[in-house]
Amino acid sequence: MPLLSTLETPPLFCLADWSTQQLASVEQALSRWVADPAQTPAPAGLGDAMRYAVLDGGKRLRPLLVLAACEAVNGSRRAALRAACAVELIHAYSLVHDDMPCMDNDVLRRGKPTVHVRFGQAQALLAGDALQALAFEILTPDDASVDAAMQARLCRMLAQAAGYQGMAGGQAIDLASVGLPLSSVQLHEMHRLKTGALLQASVMMGASCASTALPVQEALRDYGAAIGLAFQVVDDILDVTADSATLGKTAGKDAAQDKPTFVSLMGLAASTDYAQQLLAQALASLDKVQASGLNDTDALRALADMLVNRQH
Amino acid sequence: MPLLSTLETPPLFCLADWSTQQLASVEQALSRWVADPAQTPAPAGLGDAMRYAVLDGGKRLRPLLVLAACEAVNGSRRAALRAACAVELIHAYSLVHDDMPCMDNDVLRRGKPTVHVRFGQAQALLAGDALQALAFEILTPDDASVDAAMQARLCRMLAQAAGYQGMAGGQAIDLASVGLPLSSVQLHEMHRLKTGALLQASVMMGASCASTALPVQEALRDYGAAIGLAFQVVDDILDVTADSATLGKTAGKDAAQDKPTFVSLMGLAASTDYAQQLLAQALASLDKVQASGLNDTDALRALADMLVNRQH
Repeated sequence: MPLLSTLETPPLFCLADWSTQQLASVEQALSRWVADPAQTPAPAGLGDAMRYAVLDGGKRLRPLLVLAACEAVNGSRRAALRAACAVELIHAYSLVHDDMPCMDNDVLRRGKPTVHVRFGQAQALLAGDALQALAFEILTPDDASVDAAMQARLCRMLAQAAGYQGMAGGQAIDLASVGLPLSSVQLHEMHRLKTGALLQASVMMGASCASTALPVQEALRDYGAAIGLAFQVVDDILDVTADSATLGKTAGKDAAQDKPTFVSLMGLAASTDYAQQLLAQALASLDKVQASGLNDTDALRALADMLVNRQH
Repeated sequence: MPLLSTLETPPLFCLADWSTQQLASVEQALSRWVADPAQTPAPAGLGDAMRYAVLDGGKRLRPLLVLAACEAVNGSRRAALRAACAVELIHAYSLVHDDMPCMDNDVLRRGKPTVHVRFGQAQALLAGDALQALAFEILTPDDASVDAAMQARLCRMLAQAAGYQGMAGGQAIDLASVGLPLSSVQLHEMHRLKTGALLQASVMMGASCASTALPVQEALRDYGAAIGLAFQVVDDILDVTADSATLGKTAGKDAAQDKPTFVSLMGLAASTDYAQQLLAQALASLDKVQASGLNDTDALRALADMLVNRQH
C-alpha cells in the first residue's frame, strides 16, 4: 500500500522554506510599520535613519523565534506578527546605540556603515529612541485584532526583557567589565541579561499569543534560556574563528578590546562543546512541549540547531 | 446665617497644597519603582544613573497633569499614579539623552551635573534606554490593580507621544533646524511634537483612567494642546529673561546656538501675549469639561496658570 506508506511518513521540515515564508510577512510588516514614507513619515530624516537601522538586514532570529513559538502553541498569528516586529525593533535599536562611539564605536554592521556613521550621532541616538517607542506602539493597535489583555502582557514581557533587569542591565555589566577578569558565574549573568533576556522573551512572547498551559510555558522558558546562552557562546566562538566579511561586522573586536568571552574564559574547544550541550538541553525542553499534546515544535527545533551550528 | 454662608462659599483651591500631597505619592512611587536598590537593584551602577536622572529633581509637571486630569474625570487613582510615573520616566530619559554631547551638550540640569557628566556617556545612554523601557513596565503590572484594557491604552498613548510622531520626531526637527530660519508653522509643528505631545499625552492618559465621554475627552485634548504649546512659549521667554541659577539649567543656550524660538520669531512682547492667549484657550476648554457635569477641574486650571506664569 504505497499511498498509506506515504501518508505515514511525516514530511521533512525545511527551515529555509519555513523561514522564507515567515520572513516575507515580517519584512512586509516592518516596512509598513516603521515610518513608512507613504503612510506615516517621520520628520527631518528620522524615518530614514529608523528604516536604515531596521530594513533589509539582519538574520531576524528573534522574529523567527516568536513565530515558531506561536506555531508551537497554535497562537494568534496576528498577535505574533506584531510581537515579532516589536522584538526586532528593540534588537535593532540596541544595535544602533551599542555601535555609537561612546559604546562599542563600531563602524560596520550587517556589511553596511553603522547608523551614526551614515546619519550622525544625534540622529542615531534619536532613531534608537524612536525605535524603542515604536516597538510598544506596534504591540498596542487601537483595534480588536489583538486582545487587550494579550497586548498588555506582551508589553510587560518586552519591557522587562529590554530594561534594566534585562538587556540594558546586561550592557551595563558589559561596559563595566572591559579589561576585568570575570568569573564564569559573572559572565553567564552578563549574557543572560544582555542577549539572553530578549531571545528568551521572543520565545515567551510567541508562547503568550495563546492561552498556554503552565508546563508548556515552563518548557519553552527553559528552551529560551538554553538557546539564549548558546547564541552568545557561538557569537564568542565566531568572533575568533570567522572573518569580518563573513560576519558582516568587525571580527576580533572582543579580543582586541580585552572583553571577557566564553572563549577567553574556557577556551575554544570547551566553548564548542558547551554550545552543543546547550543545544541538547534546548531540544530536551521541546520534547516536553511535544509530549504535552499536538504542539508542532519543528521550527523551534530547527532554529535551535541553526543558531548553534551557524557560520556567521 | 454665617454657617450656611460658609458652606456656600467653595473653599479656595490651593495648588501648592494639592501638589505637595500629590507629589508625596509620586516621589514615593518613583523611588520604589526605579531600580530600588533594596528591591530590584540594577547591575553595574546602572541603577544609580537611572535614579540620579529621575529622583530628587524636576517640577514633575507631567505627573501633576496626569493626576489632575484623572481627578477631573474621577478616574482610577492607581492607574493614574502608574501613568504619572511612566510619563515622568519618558521625560527624564529624554533629558538624559538630550543633554549628551552629540545632542545639546549640556553640563547642568536641575542645578546638578548632567547624567553623562556624572556617570559617563555610555552609562547615560543606557540609563536613558532603560528608563524608557521601565516606563512601559510600570504601565503593565502583572496583577489586577489596573484593568488590562486600560494598561494597553496607556501604553499606546505613551508610545505614540514618545515616538517618531511625537517627542522623538520633534527633537529630529529641532536638530535639523539649528541655524535655519523656521516659519511660524514649522516652529509650531516642532514644538507640538517635541514638548507638546508628551504634555498633551499626560492630560489624555489621566483622562483615560476612567471611561470618559467623548466631548470631555476632546475638551481635555484641546486643553492639553494649548498648555503644551504655552509651555514652550514660556520656556523660550525664560531662556532670554531668566538666569541659569533660577532656571537650574544653562540660560541663553537657544540664542547662543542660534536655535529658532518663539521669541526670535515674534519678539518678547508678542510671545508674552501669545502665552496668555493660550492660557485663556486652555481655561475655556476646561469650562466645557466643567459644563459636562460634576468634574473637578480646579487642579487643571491652577496648573495651566502656574505653567504660563512661572518664573523658572
